[in-house]
Parts: sequence; structure tokens; C-alpha cells
Amino acid sequence: MQSMDKNIGRNLLVKLSYDGSRYHGWQVQNNAVSVQEIFQNALWEVLKETVNIKGCSRTDAFVHANTYAVSFKTNGSIKASNLVYALNRLLPNDIAVSSAVEVPWDFDARYSCTGKEYVYKIWNHRIKNPFMHNYALHYWYKLDTDLLSEAANSFIGTHDFTSFATLDKREQKNMVRTIYSFEVIKKDSMIELIVSADGFLYNMVRILVGTLLRVAQGKIKKEAIPSIIEMKDRKYAGPTAPPQGLYLNKVFYNLERSINT
Amino acid sequence: MQSMDKNIGRNLLVKLSYDGSRYHGWQVQNNAVSVQEIFQNALWEVLKETVNIKGCSRTDAFVHANTYAVSFKTNGSIKASNLVYALNRLLPNDIAVSSAVEVPWDFDARYSCTGKEYVYKIWNHRIKNPFMHNYALHYWYKLDTDLLSEAANSFIGTHDFTSFATLDKREQKNMVRTIYSFEVIKKDSMIELIVSADGFLYNMVRILVGTLLRVAQGKIKKEAIPSIIEMKDRKYAGPTAPPQGLYLNKVFYNLERSINT
Repeated sequence: MQSMDKNIGRNLLVKLSYDGSRYHGWQVQNNAVSVQEIFQNALWEVLKETVNIKGCSRTDAFVHANTYAVSFKTNGSIKASNLVYALNRLLPNDIAVSSAVEVPWDFDARYSCTGKEYVYKIWNHRIKNPFMHNYALHYWYKLDTDLLSEAANSFIGTHDFTSFATLDKREQKNMVRTIYSFEVIKKDSMIELIVSADGFLYNMVRILVGTLLRVAQGKIKKEAIPSIIEMKDRKYAGPTAPPQGLYLNKVFYNLERSINT
Repeated sequence: MQSMDKNIGRNLLVKLSYDGSRYHGWQVQNNAVSVQEIFQNALWEVLKETVNIKGCSRTDAFVHANTYAVSFKTNGSIKASNLVYALNRLLPNDIAVSSAVEVPWDFDARYSCTGKEYVYKIWNHRIKNPFMHNYALHYWYKLDTDLLSEAANSFIGTHDFTSFATLDKREQKNMVRTIYSFEVIKKDSMIELIVSADGFLYNMVRILVGTLLRVAQGKIKKEAIPSIIEMKDRKYAGPTAPPQGLYLNKVFYNLERSINT
């Protein structure tokens, strides 16, 4: 694909959503079914061409996506709007393509991404919700959403988030990220933690949520958060919250600027 | 159980909810896993006693319950409130017990039931919803909810609903039912059809919904509904809508009266 003539192919941005319950995350893996593998097979059926798919991020096993973005270059002539229907016809019911558009040649779903938003859902009720076991964390004890919200606010800003990342050999060395917003919304018994940033480290949202739950339990004081950030040591933060409550919600691109440059 | 002394045991009413995706309905069946079987096993673990469980209704494979009611007589001494926790600890994540109360000896979850409410969910959008494939019917073409609502209204009242029932040898011969209300609610792309009645014939809600969709398609005129009822013949109604959109939502009992008699 690297040698593809700039004047021949097109670069396409495809947005999709998926229920991650059956999958071991986005990225192709040995001995486990990934969303990428299923998507790639459907794409091959439509284009009859092996394309190099760039996904906007890795996602962990059982994590969901309300929006996921991929880009790839193709010599195929299918209209972008027809691609949506052709892929949806082939994809299983738990993966849906919502849009496909042509983008500038240098656009890359991963490297052109300017930010992301995640949602973490918590079913906060004494009784489990039988419809939510794959879609939210079940948390028995009543959570104080005001306290959660105050603690979440103290993460906002530009920080080195080493304390809130799982060590990963593949991870880049720059651990500084900027959290733009971190909201706590309660609808009946469902609490949603919504966090947006210019980027996230490996497991960062799940560790932020695990830390907020420790604050709710009184095991970490909300005033201690700045010093936990300062420590740059994973062991001072809370545990990694389980994956099934996590949704990649939005993926941000500055496509206008990308077109103008 | 029939011979159980009235002065010894207790009669309990347990309410539960379940995600029916993995189950072949409520009723115990050969060669298929039912909710009743799973519930019965959990109950045996708690009571160490084989009880005769009365379920409020049969439900078809893949149909869900926001509320389902069972009653049974037991010699066990466990407190009703403890039973809720003991059962939830044993039941899988897709079945949840919400309450347990002692009821009069002659109460029966099926025969004491004075009415039920069902919800049928339709995801009405060109693009499938990957989170709803087990929880709603996907309907591509835009539905006119005003038309659906007007057509639904013409089912309200006391009628012989033979045209809207699948023949079933087990079914009682009285095909007259009273529909109290039939509402159509749209929230974003999700349409909910909510119907309550004193009782429902086999497959009745799914055939009512299938008929409403035929009205939306212009294949049955809404003015024709009274004559379809009149025909007392299944072949004039619409098809049976698929099970995954259907939820038993509420089960009505007149427990005060039951206690006073």
C-alpha cells in the first residue's frame, strides 16, 4: 500500500460502532476474535483488495465503541455511501458502519486524531440489572455523584498521567495528556462518567474510574489526587475498573485544517 | 405440594427480570435451556426443597421480562428479603430477582393475575444499532408514529382476538380479551409499543405488532382493523413480529382484595 500512486487510490474514513461483548478488542490477535479481523474480512468481500486499515486506537477486550474510526487507502471505485450499506450487509449484528467519506491522502485515523471521548457506565443499584451485565459495571453501594464529580474535576488539565497507566512496552514515552472535561451524569440508577482528552494512555480511563470509586469509598481522599498524579507511580492510584462499562464515545479530527494544509 | 398443611408452609410471590437472549422462554423444555429451569435450580440450592413454581405466563424463546412473577409454597424458613439476595448470588447475570413477599395461601402467580403489560421495541433507523440486535426489532423505513398510534387505538376494548393468536392446543377456548391501552412512544430512533390487557392469547402481542407494521407499510388500512377482528381468522392479520423486541413489562395483581377474602 505504501507504493500506491497518490493519483490513483482514495483515502477513506469509515466510522463504526460495536458491541464489544464478543470480541477481544479492536486489534487483530492470535487465538481470539477481534473487531478488526471481522471488519477486515467484510472489507475484503466488498473491495476484493487487501487494504491496510488504520484504527483510531486499540481497545481492550469487551470494551464497546459508540464511535470508532478507521481509515484506509483503496483503488476500489465503490461510492463511499454504497460502502456503508455493503459493509452493514456483511457485518454481524454487533458491528455497524455509520458513515464513510473520502479524506485527504495524508489523513490517518490514528495519527490525525486530535482527541477522544470515553464514557464509563455504572449501574448503581442494590439489585443487578440483567440487561446491563455486559454494558455497565454493577456497583452495589450508593455512590455520591457530587463527590465523584468534584474528584473527577481534579484530573482536568495537562498532567503526566504515569500513575494512571498500565505499563506497556509498546507505549510511547510521553506520558503527558490533557484532559478537557470529566463529567458525572446520573439518570435513574445509571451513572455515566464522561471524559475527553487529547489522548489516553493504556488503561487510563479504567484506572481513572477505579480511582474515583476508591474516592467514593473513602479509601482515597479527593484532595490527594494532585499528589497521586505527582507521584508518577501506578501503585498510588486505584484499581483498573472492569472493561464492560467502557465505551469509546467520540473521536475528534480537525478535518478542515487537514484539507487546507 | 398439594398435600402441604395450610398451617405449616408459606406462599411466596417473587418478582424477577431477565434478558431472554440466551433462553428458550420461561417454561422448562426438553433440549433447551429455560429461565424456569435456571430459577428452579437456584431455588433448590437455597431451600433444599423441591417446590412447585407457578409462573405468571409462558414467554417465547428470546423474549425478555422487565417484570416476571412466580409464586410457590415452601416449608423453608428463610426471610423473604434474604431470599432476594441468596437467589441473586446464585443466578446468572442475565436473571435478577427484585423482590420476594409472603402472599395469601390461595394466591397463584398465574391464576391470580388480573392483567399484564408488554412493551415491543423497534429500532427505527437506516443503520442497525449494534447494541440492540437482541433487544429490539430493526426496522429500516421511517415509521409514521401517528399512524401507528391511531391503528393501535382501534384494538382497545373487549374483542374476540382469534385473528391475532397462533393456534395452540394448550390454549383455553375463550378467545375474548380486553385491551386497556395501547401506546406508541418514540425516543430518538427507538419506538416503543406499550400494550396492557386483562390477558393475552398465544403470540398475540407479536401479531398485533406485525399487523401495525403492515398498516405502516400501507398494506393493511387502519380502517380495516375492526373487520380483521370480526373475521376471527389468523390469516387476515399481519405476520408474527420477531421475539427479540418483546418484553413482559408489568404483571398486575389485586393483592389487597386477595388478602381480604
